[in-house]
Amino acid sequence: MSDPSSFCSSEQFITRHLNLHLKVDFSSHVISASSAQTVRCLQDSLSTLILDTKDLTIKKVSLNGQEAKFSLGAAHSFKGTPLEITLPSPLTRGEEAILEICSETSPKSSALQWLKPEQTAGKTHPYLFSQCQATHCRTIVPCQDTPSVKFTYYCQMSVPKELVALMSALNDGDFIDPHDSTRKIYRFKQNVPIPSYLIALVVGALEGRKIGPRTTVWTEKESLEAAVYEFAETEKMLKYAESLVGPYVWEKYDLLILPPSFPYGGMENPCLTFVTPTVLAGDRSLASVIAHEISHSWTGNLVTNRTWENFWLNEGHTMYLERRIDGLLYGEQFRQFKASGGWKELQNAVNTFGATNPLTNLVPNLHEVDVDVAFSSIPYEKGFALLFYLEQLLGGPDVFLGFLKTYIQVFAYKSVTTDEWKTFLYSYFQDKVDILDKVDWNGWMHTPGMPPVQPKYDMTLANACISLANKWTAAKESDLSSFSAADLKELSSHQQIEFLTLLLLKDPLPLSHVKRMQEVYNFNAVKNSEILFRWLRVCILAKWEDAIPLALKMATEQGRMKFTRPLYRDLYNFDKARDLAVSTFLKNRSSMHPVTEMLVAKDLHVDA
Amino acid sequence: MSDPSSFCSSEQFITRHLNLHLKVDFSSHVISASSAQTVRCLQDSLSTLILDTKDLTIKKVSLNGQEAKFSLGAAHSFKGTPLEITLPSPLTRGEEAILEICSETSPKSSALQWLKPEQTAGKTHPYLFSQCQATHCRTIVPCQDTPSVKFTYYCQMSVPKELVALMSALNDGDFIDPHDSTRKIYRFKQNVPIPSYLIALVVGALEGRKIGPRTTVWTEKESLEAAVYEFAETEKMLKYAESLVGPYVWEKYDLLILPPSFPYGGMENPCLTFVTPTVLAGDRSLASVIAHEISHSWTGNLVTNRTWENFWLNEGHTMYLERRIDGLLYGEQFRQFKASGGWKELQNAVNTFGATNPLTNLVPNLHEVDVDVAFSSIPYEKGFALLFYLEQLLGGPDVFLGFLKTYIQVFAYKSVTTDEWKTFLYSYFQDKVDILDKVDWNGWMHTPGMPPVQPKYDMTLANACISLANKWTAAKESDLSSFSAADLKELSSHQQIEFLTLLLLKDPLPLSHVKRMQEVYNFNAVKNSEILFRWLRVCILAKWEDAIPLALKMATEQGRMKFTRPLYRDLYNFDKARDLAVSTFLKNRSSMHPVTEMLVAKDLHVDA
Repeated sequence: MSDPSSFCSSEQFITRHLNLHLKVDFSSHVISASSAQTVRCLQDSLSTLILDTKDLTIKKVSLNGQEAKFSLGAAHSFKGTPLEITLPSPLTRGEEAILEICSETSPKSSALQWLKPEQTAGKTHPYLFSQCQATHCRTIVPCQDTPSVKFTYYCQMSVPKELVALMSALNDGDFIDPHDSTRKIYRFKQNVPIPSYLIALVVGALEGRKIGPRTTVWTEKESLEAAVYEFAETEKMLKYAESLVGPYVWEKYDLLILPPSFPYGGMENPCLTFVTPTVLAGDRSLASVIAHEISHSWTGNLVTNRTWENFWLNEGHTMYLERRIDGLLYGEQFRQFKASGGWKELQNAVNTFGATNPLTNLVPNLHEVDVDVAFSSIPYEKGFALLFYLEQLLGGPDVFLGFLKTYIQVFAYKSVTTDEWKTFLYSYFQDKVDILDKVDWNGWMHTPGMPPVQPKYDMTLANACISLANKWTAAKESDLSSFSAADLKELSSHQQIEFLTLLLLKDPLPLSHVKRMQEVYNFNAVKNSEILFRWLRVCILAKWEDAIPLALKMATEQGRMKFTRPLYRDLYNFDKARDLAVSTFLKNRSSMHPVTEMLVAKDLHVDA
Repeated sequence: MSDPSSFCSSEQFITRHLNLHLKVDFSSHVISASSAQTVRCLQDSLSTLILDTKDLTIKKVSLNGQEAKFSLGAAHSFKGTPLEITLPSPLTRGEEAILEICSETSPKSSALQWLKPEQTAGKTHPYLFSQCQATHCRTIVPCQDTPSVKFTYYCQMSVPKELVALMSALNDGDFIDPHDSTRKIYRFKQNVPIPSYLIALVVGALEGRKIGPRTTVWTEKESLEAAVYEFAETEKMLKYAESLVGPYVWEKYDLLILPPSFPYGGMENPCLTFVTPTVLAGDRSLASVIAHEISHSWTGNLVTNRTWENFWLNEGHTMYLERRIDGLLYGEQFRQFKASGGWKELQNAVNTFGATNPLTNLVPNLHEVDVDVAFSSIPYEKGFALLFYLEQLLGGPDVFLGFLKTYIQVFAYKSVTTDEWKTFLYSYFQDKVDILDKVDWNGWMHTPGMPPVQPKYDMTLANACISLANKWTAAKESDLSSFSAADLKELSSHQQIEFLTLLLLKDPLPLSHVKRMQEVYNFNAVKNSEILFRWLRVCILAKWEDAIPLALKMATEQGRMKFTRPLYRDLYNFDKARDLAVSTFLKNRSSMHPVTEMLVAKDLHVDA
């Protein structure tokens, strides 16, 4: 199957190794790249190669040292511009060749965010980070920007010598740039084959602290202490993950805490997980982000979705593993609680997209669809729900883990489709084919909206959230005095998040209720971003004007799209806040991450 | 650590892919090769490359299309001739390049045996097969001929069109050679990285028959039916192996039955195990050879010894897995019986080499030692004994299998040393370090002779063999009439082998005894080659002249070095047979496999 999000064909040739020389220029916001990729020909005779590019300037192309002609095709609105290279002589089946390209990035590269010193915690040095998933690697270097192709990489990166550079790879030493003594060259090697979307880099005034045998936390020094505290359980989680699915093959598991504009909760860049600073809750309550990124070391990074239409293979399995780790850390009831919470998140996402929207399919069709626009919780939580349902159907957690372990072993270092996954499921459970045949596969995979069946959950921990939420929605004005701060005493921060999630699935509360809720629970003062975010949505949906400044502040300061987009959207839908939301966005958009900016502009119906 | 059996350094550069074009010429006994290998530079700057060659003619070398200067070093007696290539421009760390070499093999290539039509079963077509393990791949193409380097390969092989070509790879189609319509080109791909010693090829009048979902048996048609019967349980064994150590990653598991001159019982060439025809016992009693080669798909082919000094990592673990499969097929008592038989084989090998010979170390020093000369059962059976001992020490078969599975997962696709194995053992059993610390590691690994401790064995099946053997050695002339054919009725062929093995560990029997044994047991008529071989040794050691013709016949017709070398050696040590043995060898040497010939010449003190 071909990848609708790429111009490349992984049936004609594949990249096996990428040797990069990068020069990072903070004054022009440009990375100059000299790349040499080893390509292997898979067809009888190959005389042209197509690579993905977006907003790149191509200076020179050569094959095995011989200059090659090239041309750029028409620019596609989100897929970028295909680079067509005419080979000096055709390649034959099984033959490899070295393809060298000199190129430059554009300052508007959607993979890169260039921060000025004043946008950093330290205020002194500039900062650069990348986010390639899903289709942005092509804005850094020409490549087969499809997860169906995996390669090793080596990189030498020249940066101002006062800064530290890191990549999704192992460090391989550094030295003063022989061509410019104000610069330093950092070297990196990634010897496990990875897809292009796992290439990642960061350059900034970073400091590191070792917090485990294979883990260093990296961040600007201002948040180092907080990060060291928050992620103290990383090695324990790694060990739990290994006990579930086998050895960790990436050697190092470092963590990088990014500036607030980082658009996701975490990104599973190999050897160096990228994390939003919003998980620094101060109480380790948001550490499940780390359990999630650790789990990707197997599901996603070792076994990779062949195309983004199969994204649920990455995220569904990773949610499943994340919650297995949760179970080992906090018990089976907690896993069941998180699982049932996932079903609510799924309902929320289905409500946002609309229950007939084909993008709510587990396996959506992404022809002519921008992966960033299609992104949602669906592949995470519908994928998880399917696996959790299968776990119950096929004999419970132990039996299902046997399948998952073998699936990982079989497809390790490969890319996989949903069909291959399903064929393997049937072959693993060949004595349970009758059970599998009763699964409504079409309903689960190719039908919009909620799944055809809901798994069963142990509701012990969820019930307290449900009854408190029901109490609030059922309450009359005269009942409001019965609520007090004591209501939350028995609820963990996870349960408070669940309580607010439940409220968001119901009709908006009357204004009097949210005012009372603030009075007794004082959510406005909570540091935990998952609680605050949901609380502010509850307020804005209840049309409480007093919450506008706080919601706008969070929407603006938050880089995490999961928070900023719904908040902006809710403000936009609140008559009294709409103009303010639009003007605030326009004022601040230049400092937003390029992908966040693009998506919020869409949400607010503002020109991109 | 460097590989004493190779001139290459895997620290300077590694081969990642080999693209081969081979032309097989049966009239001149020459293979012309045009090879292109993708090499990755691992050091800061690399201006010369050294590859292994032996008896090759090098015609041309180029790097990325630019011609490169090269020179051949001094020929070493068994390591061959280093090929030093001066690169047109130096390579940098992380850089890859395409190294093309045109070369030709010598008719005396020690990897290849060229058979005339009359030496085949069909008598009509010539036949060619290769055996690269340990250090013979360098006699086919220039390469990093060390198991520390792994690469994928693609090959297009031109052969006379009436013949079939196979390789240790997946078939990728065939077509008439566009340059010569009397020839056909067969294409092969091996996408799992393998060491050079696993490259294998065969060309002959072969026929195939599918005997399982992933298995075809290939042989000359004369022995096809026998092979189909003998190996009917292959898929069952593959399934058992998978149930022990996880998924089989090589897709296809074909079997090739070779002509009698094939020097080993089996060779674990990936996707296509090579097997001696002597395992066609007619009763599936020698199928453990297949269990052994199947097991190599994990231990050896997926996890590979870094150098031949670590050969026990390949063979010890494979014997362990082979016997676990035996256990699943025939029960735990049988596994214990085979395990205790292994201890006897080890005693036999130690006796042959001498108990103070450093080559009887589990981890021998192979500096300036020819791997073929060092080859013995020691790494197989001392390695097995260590693992079986550790199994008992650390908690039994289930616990130890957990270790083995994880070891395979951790080191899959890599090459490994004994030190790495031991470090991993300690980390896996970190709660049993006190037990591990009591193991006499130096005694097991770096001391000649028998191991410091003998594991315990369930002797149920062995006892019958022991008592029959003891009865024969204790028997006086007057007792001989008490033996009868009925003695063997209760003994399986495996037990008969064990009975004879035990006799070989004792002083030679009196002549009267072996005569009586033939009278009552008629071993001369047995088809099972493992029985016949041991029986003939018993006769010759007892100086029974009547056995000389049969022993000479077996030594001559047998290509399997395990049989032919001891038989020739025993005949040489029997005054009345010595001259006959030497003259028979001299008459037949030209049709022997080149490695067998070299080793038997040494054994018989004849010039090579």
